[in-house]
Amino acid sequence: MFVSETKLRVRYAETDQMGYVYYGNYASYYEVGRVEAMRSIGFSYSRMEEDGVMMPVLENHSRFLKPGRYDEHLTIRTSIKEMPGIRIRFHYDILNEAGDLIHQGETLLTFLRTDNHRPCRPPSYLMEVLRPYFEPSTIND
Amino acid sequence: MFVSETKLRVRYAETDQMGYVYYGNYASYYEVGRVEAMRSIGFSYSRMEEDGVMMPVLENHSRFLKPGRYDEHLTIRTSIKEMPGIRIRFHYDILNEAGDLIHQGETLLTFLRTDNHRPCRPPSYLMEVLRPYFEPSTIND
Amino acid sequence: MFVSETKLRVRYAETDQMGYVYYGNYASYYEVGRVEAMRSIGFSYSRMEEDGVMMPVLENHSRFLKPGRYDEHLTIRTSIKEMPGIRIRFHYDILNEAGDLIHQGETLLTFLRTDNHRPCRPPSYLMEVLRPYFEPSTIND
Amino acid sequence: MFVSETKLRVRYAETDQMGYVYYGNYASYYEVGRVEAMRSIGFSYSRMEEDGVMMPVLENHSRFLKPGRYDEHLTIRTSIKEMPGIRIRFHYDILNEAGDLIHQGETLLTFLRTDNHRPCRPPSYLMEVLRPYFEPSTIND
Repeated sequence: MFVSETKLRVRYAETDQMGYVYYGNYASYYEVGRVEAMRSIGFSYSRMEEDGVMMPVLENHSRFLKPGRYDEHLTIRTSIKEMPGIRIRFHYDILNEAGDLIHQGETLLTFLRTDNHRPCRPPSYLMEVLRPYFEPSTIND
Repeated sequence: MFVSETKLRVRYAETDQMGYVYYGNYASYYEVGRVEAMRSIGFSYSRMEEDGVMMPVLENHSRFLKPGRYDEHLTIRTSIKEMPGIRIRFHYDILNEAGDLIHQGETLLTFLRTDNHRPCRPPSYLMEVLRPYFEPSTIND
Repeated sequence: MFVSETKLRVRYAETDQMGYVYYGNYASYYEVGRVEAMRSIGFSYSRMEEDGVMMPVLENHSRFLKPGRYDEHLTIRTSIKEMPGIRIRFHYDILNEAGDLIHQGETLLTFLRTDNHRPCRPPSYLMEVLRPYFEPSTIND
Repeated sequence: MFVSETKLRVRYAETDQMGYVYYGNYASYYEVGRVEAMRSIGFSYSRMEEDGVMMPVLENHSRFLKPGRYDEHLTIRTSIKEMPGIRIRFHYDILNEAGDLIHQGETLLTFLRTDNHRPCRPPSYLMEVLRPYFEPSTIND
């Protein structure tokens, strides 16, 4: 399992007149979470896209536990629980400054070639940086 | 069951550099869908909020079947499959101009009093406009 | 001079915790205004982009006169006051349902070739549909 | 004169199908710039709003010099050139990672009481933290 944390501060632009983070804005928080999670192990989504592979989202699931509020410095905890195949699933726990879990999300993405929008295998360098987190623990020593 | 359709046109602002509707923007399409669905039967979300009741989202689920694209005139088909209690669930089917189902979504919302953010019953006038869609068909007369 | 009107309804997503339309969201209202203005005379921005020309914004100016509010059905009055050359300037007056002018904006755009991002002339079919609005009125006949 | 810098990374959500930062998204970058500028001298916009004062935008001006792009780590340089009165003007220079000035903006804001939305004086604690940046330089030592 791979887990990584990043922080972001809620923008005024992201609130709505309920005084909460608008429910549709969590998707961009997930994006920040997964991009920074991958950057933390040396993988650049931007570089991958320049290399001709993009990752559209297939499914998204969100649970809103407590409201997010303006100016809060949120923690996005992103995890990958299974070694990706042609699809990759990210889980997100979002915590507020008090450490309360306010939100949980999950997105399933796939890999497409940018030129023809056809499915492709994940880039080998992505698999390499992720593999150490999923290797079976060695049995003997 | 209650079903209603509305249309909206994809804005440039809503696309991303993949050339698709950014995945997080469907949530605001759902919002348009459910607000217009309720308006179509004489219920104003805005009025309800002025009356002191708001409807935060508890859960959101999305399936991205085909990309949405700039300038497409999308159809949002919003349905309520069960008479709401203290929660209300909306389903969304989004179709492109060719009539292809490109997206499916589902949101669960609840009712809170605006003044103290505590749970409350749905307004009776909402229940009244919805009831006819869920009444058992009378057998005899 | 060319003037065209379109309407849009303020989404919850577009409000902020002040209870107003977030100031950054007017830019997308301008976009709706100018795209629909051009569509009204038979010009499709989307088609132009497929033909290899895009229109990035060079300048944007906004004056916020009164707040825009959730669920208001706003009128976007878009005008072009001068025949475009290599640049095109749009003006926007935004009115609320009471007919109050709540916002004024102005954007200057240019034309670039999509393939190499170099400046180019506006498409001749855009000039053709606009010319009738700027021709000197004939005096004698 | 008061100048402060902050950085932010362009999100995928903020790009459009031109492959640029959508022109309307700079307004939220300005917001980040001015909020972080004020935080850097001990002033919290959020606290001020809780104290009953809000700052709506009256005018916004933007010049787009070069495109902003996905994943760039932009520098937002925010400055206040004159001691604020009942209005406060912020200037923004946005630089990309190469140090190129890609964007310039300017916003004029005012102060309103949250309870009645009437104009008010800026909070004295805002004036106090800003005054040192605008005091006439002492002549003798």
